[in-house]
Parts: sequence; C-alpha cells; structure tokens
Amino acid sequence: MSRRRIARGTGWPRPADFPAPPEPADRRRWAEADRAARPARLARLRTVLADAGIDGYFGLRPEDARYLTGVRLGFGEEKVAGHSGRFLVTETAVVVLADSRYTAQFAAEADGARLEVLSGELVDRWRPLLAELGIRRLAVDRSCPVGLWRELEAAAPTVELEVAPDWLDELRATKEPAEVERIRAAAAVADRALASLLPEIAPGRTERELALRLEWAIRTGGADGLAFEVACLSGAQAALPHGSPRPVPIERGTVLLVDFGAEVDGYRSDMTRTLFVGEPGPAATAIYELVARAQAAAVDRLAASLAEPTPPSGRAVDAAARAVIAAAGFGPSFGHGTGHGIGLATHERPRLSRFAPDTPLPSPTVFSVEPGVYLEGDLGVRIEDLVAYDHGARRLERLTGFPSDPVVVGEPDRRRPQRWRR
Amino acid sequence: MSRRRIARGTGWPRPADFPAPPEPADRRRWAEADRAARPARLARLRTVLADAGIDGYFGLRPEDARYLTGVRLGFGEEKVAGHSGRFLVTETAVVVLADSRYTAQFAAEADGARLEVLSGELVDRWRPLLAELGIRRLAVDRSCPVGLWRELEAAAPTVELEVAPDWLDELRATKEPAEVERIRAAAAVADRALASLLPEIAPGRTERELALRLEWAIRTGGADGLAFEVACLSGAQAALPHGSPRPVPIERGTVLLVDFGAEVDGYRSDMTRTLFVGEPGPAATAIYELVARAQAAAVDRLAASLAEPTPPSGRAVDAAARAVIAAAGFGPSFGHGTGHGIGLATHERPRLSRFAPDTPLPSPTVFSVEPGVYLEGDLGVRIEDLVAYDHGARRLERLTGFPSDPVVVGEPDRRRPQRWRR
Repeated sequence: MSRRRIARGTGWPRPADFPAPPEPADRRRWAEADRAARPARLARLRTVLADAGIDGYFGLRPEDARYLTGVRLGFGEEKVAGHSGRFLVTETAVVVLADSRYTAQFAAEADGARLEVLSGELVDRWRPLLAELGIRRLAVDRSCPVGLWRELEAAAPTVELEVAPDWLDELRATKEPAEVERIRAAAAVADRALASLLPEIAPGRTERELALRLEWAIRTGGADGLAFEVACLSGAQAALPHGSPRPVPIERGTVLLVDFGAEVDGYRSDMTRTLFVGEPGPAATAIYELVARAQAAAVDRLAASLAEPTPPSGRAVDAAARAVIAAAGFGPSFGHGTGHGIGLATHERPRLSRFAPDTPLPSPTVFSVEPGVYLEGDLGVRIEDLVAYDHGARRLERLTGFPSDPVVVGEPDRRRPQRWRR
Repeated sequence: MSRRRIARGTGWPRPADFPAPPEPADRRRWAEADRAARPARLARLRTVLADAGIDGYFGLRPEDARYLTGVRLGFGEEKVAGHSGRFLVTETAVVVLADSRYTAQFAAEADGARLEVLSGELVDRWRPLLAELGIRRLAVDRSCPVGLWRELEAAAPTVELEVAPDWLDELRATKEPAEVERIRAAAAVADRALASLLPEIAPGRTERELALRLEWAIRTGGADGLAFEVACLSGAQAALPHGSPRPVPIERGTVLLVDFGAEVDGYRSDMTRTLFVGEPGPAATAIYELVARAQAAAVDRLAASLAEPTPPSGRAVDAAARAVIAAAGFGPSFGHGTGHGIGLATHERPRLSRFAPDTPLPSPTVFSVEPGVYLEGDLGVRIEDLVAYDHGARRLERLTGFPSDPVVVGEPDRRRPQRWRR
C-alpha cells in the first residue's frame, strides 16, 4: 500500500485552506508596481536594440503589449478587426496603435505611451509614422502575419525590416516580485476552486459538467478569467495529453485528470491533479506514486541547485524527473516535457524538456513541474505544480498549494453526517 | 410616445418562445453534411489553385482547417506550442499536421485527409514533405507568422512561397444549408439565454455578474461555447463600442447594451440588444427608434434586392442604414460598419460598410445588421440581428428570433403575483 496519505471525504483540502482571493487594494498595488517597473523593462529592451543597431521594435503580442506599455486586452481580442494594442518602441518613444474603440481604455492604461489612433489601415499611416519616429531599421515580432509584413514592407520600402529574435520572451522569463505575487494569487484561486469541486464529483456526472463547474468556481472565485480551457479527462481519456471535456459520465474505479488555471490581473496559473473516482487499485496507485516521485526528483534537483554557483538547465531538471520514470520502465509513456514558464502567457520561457537549451535557467522565474505517465486505453496520471525559483535569493517556493497526495472522490463519506453532504 | 410596443414584465420574451437546443441527432446530421460537402469545398479551392498555377496551399487558421479537413480546435488552441491542425492541400492530397496529442482526435475528424504526425519541428520535415507532395509553388495563408515563413523558406529554398490571396475567405463567405442551420441554432441558444436573463436584471447587479450569468445560460443551454466574450455595458459605458464588463452596478434610468453570441458545432451567432433599466425618457426612446429604423432600412434594401438581377453591395446596404441615421443628424455618432459575415469565424466576409467593395454580396450568405448610435458620456444604442440572404432562392430570413422592440427591465412587474417572482 502507498506510503502517501490518501485524502478521502473530510480529509479533503477545503477552500478555506488556501489564501483568499485578491482585494481591490492588491490590484491597485500591482498596477502601481507595473507602472514603476515599466521604465526598467523598456530600458532592458532598448539596450538589446542598441546592441543590435536597431532603431525600433514593432510588437504584436498582447502579453508583450501589456508588459511594456500597460494596455490590457481580453483573450482573442487582438484577432478582431481593427487596431488593438500593437506597439512601437524606439530609444525615446513608446507608441501604442489603437482604433477609436480603445482610445479611452488605452489612454488610462498606457500612461507612459503615446497613443496613435488609426481610423483606417495601418499601412496608410506606416511610412509617415516611422519617419516621425526616426526608424530606419525595425525589428518585427516573429508572430507578425506575413500578409501584414508584406504590406508594411511595400508601404515604407526604405525601412529595413528584420524578424526580431526572441528578445521579449527572454525579458519576460525573469519575474519581478509583483509578477510572482499575481501568479501565486492565480494559483490560490485555482486551489480553492478545485477544493470546492471535490464534494460534487460523483460517478454519473459528466466531464463537461465538472469542467464547467470548475470554471465557474474559478471565475466567481477571484479570477479575471481562465488561464486556458479546463481539461477534464476521465478513465482512458486521461491517457491523451489533450482533449476537450466530453458529455460522458465519469465512472467509479477510474481516474479523473483535471488540468486548469486561473488568470489574475493578466497573470496565469496552471495545475493538474489526477483524482481517483473510488478507491484505486494497486496498479493505479503505483503509477501515481511513480509520477509523484518523478516530480519530487525535479524539485529536489532545483533545491540542490540553490547551493550551486549557477542554476541548472531546463534540460537537467527534465532529466531528473525523466530518470525516475525511465528507471521504472515507463520512459516511453512520458512523452512531453517536464515543465514550462508561465506569466502573462500560459506557456512561455523557460522550457524544461529534453529539447531545452543546455544553458542555466533564468532567475527569478516561475515554471510548472508536471511529469506524467500515460498508458493508452487504460489511464493517465499527471501532477502539475508551479514553482517560483530564485537562485540569487536561494529560494524555491511551491506556488500551488493543493496537496499532491492521492485524493479519492465520489465515495460516500461515512464519517460525515448525512445532513452535511450535498 | 413610441409607436413600437415596449415589452415589460410578463410581456417579455421567454426562453420557450425560441427553438429548443440542438439534439445529438442534429449534430450527427451536421457532421454527415460536412463530410459530404468537403469534396466540393476542396474542388473549389483546387480550381482557384490551378488557375493561379500553384501546386499547394498551406493553411494555418483553425476555421479553414475545420472547413476543408474537418479537424476541430478549441478557442486559442492553435496558439499553444506544438502542431495542431495546420494543413496542406494539393491537387490530389489533403495533409493535416499534428503532434501526438491530436493523433486520435484528428484521425476520427479528418477522415478524408492524411495525418502527418510530427514529433519535432515542422522545419525538420518540411522539405521532404513538400517533395513527396510534389509542391514547387506554395500559397501560404496570410496569417502565417513571419518567423515561421522565414524558417520554411530556409528549409526548402527551391520551393517558391507566395502569400495567398483571400481565397478561403471568399469560399467560406457562401454558406451551405447545413451551415446556415447551425448559425440559426446558435442564434436560438443566444435568444433563449437573453430571455432567461431578463427577470434577473435589476439596479445594483453589476455588469460583470450579468455578463457571467448570460454566459452561463449560453453554455448550459445548448452551446459548445461562446462565439466571443460577452459585452455588457451600462449607461455611458454603452457609448464605447468596446469594453469588458465592469464590477460596477447598473443604475435605474440607464441603458444596458449586451452584445453576445453562441457557438454551436463550430458555427457562431452574434446579437446585440439595448435594454432600458427602468422606463426610458423620450430622448433615449427616440434614439432607440432611430436605430431600429436604420436597421429596418438595411433589411428593406436587402428584401427589395431579391427582385433585382444581382445582390446589392455591402456598401449599398450600409448606405441604406446610414442614410436614416444621417438624416436625423446623428451621422457622426455611427462610427462602425453596418454588418459583417459570420460562420466558423465570428467576423468574416462579407463586410457591410462604407469601405466594403462595391461588388455584389455573395449568396447564399449570413451576416449581421447592426447599426448603432453612440452619444459620448450619455448612452449608446445598438440593435444587431443576423440575417440569411439567398438571392438565388429569393429568400431573406432573420435568424435572430428575439424581438427588437424596446424592453424595459429592472421594474417591479405589478401584474405578476409576488410568489412568481425571483
């Protein structure tokens, strides 16, 4: 039998075990911290630009716009027609492009930037705008649609366009204290939401119902939104590392894998728990133990590195988790990487995988540690926590508060009086 | 006083006034219709490719992948790392690119396509893949990130890459009967959801609460998701054509503008209603009447065109609505276009605006008719319905079922016994 405590019924984590949702005062403090941090963020980019002999940077990703200018865009908003938050940075200026829908909002949010309100197409304004800003060599974010690139090229043929290296990904990989605080707050919202869901999970309820219920708990529990669509996969479906929640009832004697996250003030969390619907058999318990040990190995590697002169690489941390799973003979059943950075985007630098660069992790930074074992046609187990890693401060903190002990759901709880149960 | 009926209390539309949500049998029929339609969709693209002397098409947008290959991607899924549903079409082949996460799902969905499972980067497989497929001139969707474009260019330097014209937008603008059926179903889900919300709207409830409540009604009322984030704007905020729902209570004597839509089996709806919170004054009523008349003018223009030899242009339909608003002296207060096509994407061809091409509308097609008047610092009124337009069949159908008469909410309903009220 497992040496890990198995949580059942009244032994379950409860919402009140985790920090309360953020208050308006927290949000004001974060807005202030961003405002104070923006000049330094811009200075870091400007140093990189100057070193590369480049006059300007054209950014298109909402997370970069938020980071450097302060404008906030809803999920998918950048894809709607019009101009929403693309921006230019030069040695002396920050210019946010917007159409009239965004004028009032951006003027309040991007207080250090100049707002360039476009009533027509960007190409019609492009050449004079670049001339005003003195831009002759422009780095363009690699996400720029090639159709737009070609139009901009034609509109100002004397300006040299270059595809920017991943400068902003590198900048955003290291986190300021107020950034970590928001990821921690998003993680706590997710912890509380899952704790509130446990009593409602029962055989017969569908994956889709439970996913929607969890989403509701996140969105009414202090989050500004989801970090990504909730994954809720039961039984053999949990062996697929991907899949939308199905209108299919969950069954006793299977696993329920939930992978979800909250967004708080732009920052995201990401966690996975694999629950047992009814008492697990020894095989499922053993796989759970194995994945938990793999996760612990990665965390131990990170903890040990705090006494070393430099952070380990993402590849080394991945190897620590992978070795545990491979030693048990399940290597081929762990197909994905061990983790990914998180912040204004759900997936960002650093990568922790076999294919990650063999260079030290950035620091301070936040990333997931999420090994898994997937047995096709049978079950899948993944345990995912976020950690904040600060090599300089010799600090490693698990931001996910929800315990990673096995949890059994969907069982009548004999110790709890009937009237207390839903 | 207004000549339009004002709906109050028991006079409100009720959920049961609108068609019931789709059944599993509907979904099976739609899947079958798509499967049957795909060869003809591909044939249309292949004709265009052959005319342009192009060997292959590289598509990147989820809506195009769904249309041509059948694969279904969740909102934002294409932005996550890995390979999810990009595709190639040649004269004889359809190839869907996927990583192992999607293998099982895509194999079931894209039954006429070859699945190319990538374990590493696309660039590593690009050159042999194009060689196998005999592609020497490749049209690439204009949404392709310039970073990827450059990598693909370098990986197969002898292949000529071209930015594709908007061929797929043109193809998708005309709708098959089973596509219109799904937009109609999505519109009915949205109608029911708004009807269910009316009794809950009261001064003191916040925009955010009401938006979340409406979203919940959509997502538990037969939709597979939202078409886009719910907009719920009260009072002067409704004068901004954009804005996220705020944690701000709505007030008596103001308007409440809700702009929202459902997604059913990939197809979207989009509707706007401007409700009165408490009895409106004569000025607000007059603006509402004006917008309703502008909408009616656009619809009348469309109806008249059924007796004409060709469909009108999107510009002409826009002009019909705009003339009414301009004649009343509010021209500058109607800043956006009169409408947009809708289908697998919320915004697609055709455009109905001053800047739309002066060529006949496609047919059969579906689009919104949504004039508005926005008075800064005071109020905004928009009324948005979807219509299906079929010039060949001489048919014009309003897909939005919710009446466009003014609706007063948040008032005690004296005719309804107290115990019936929430």
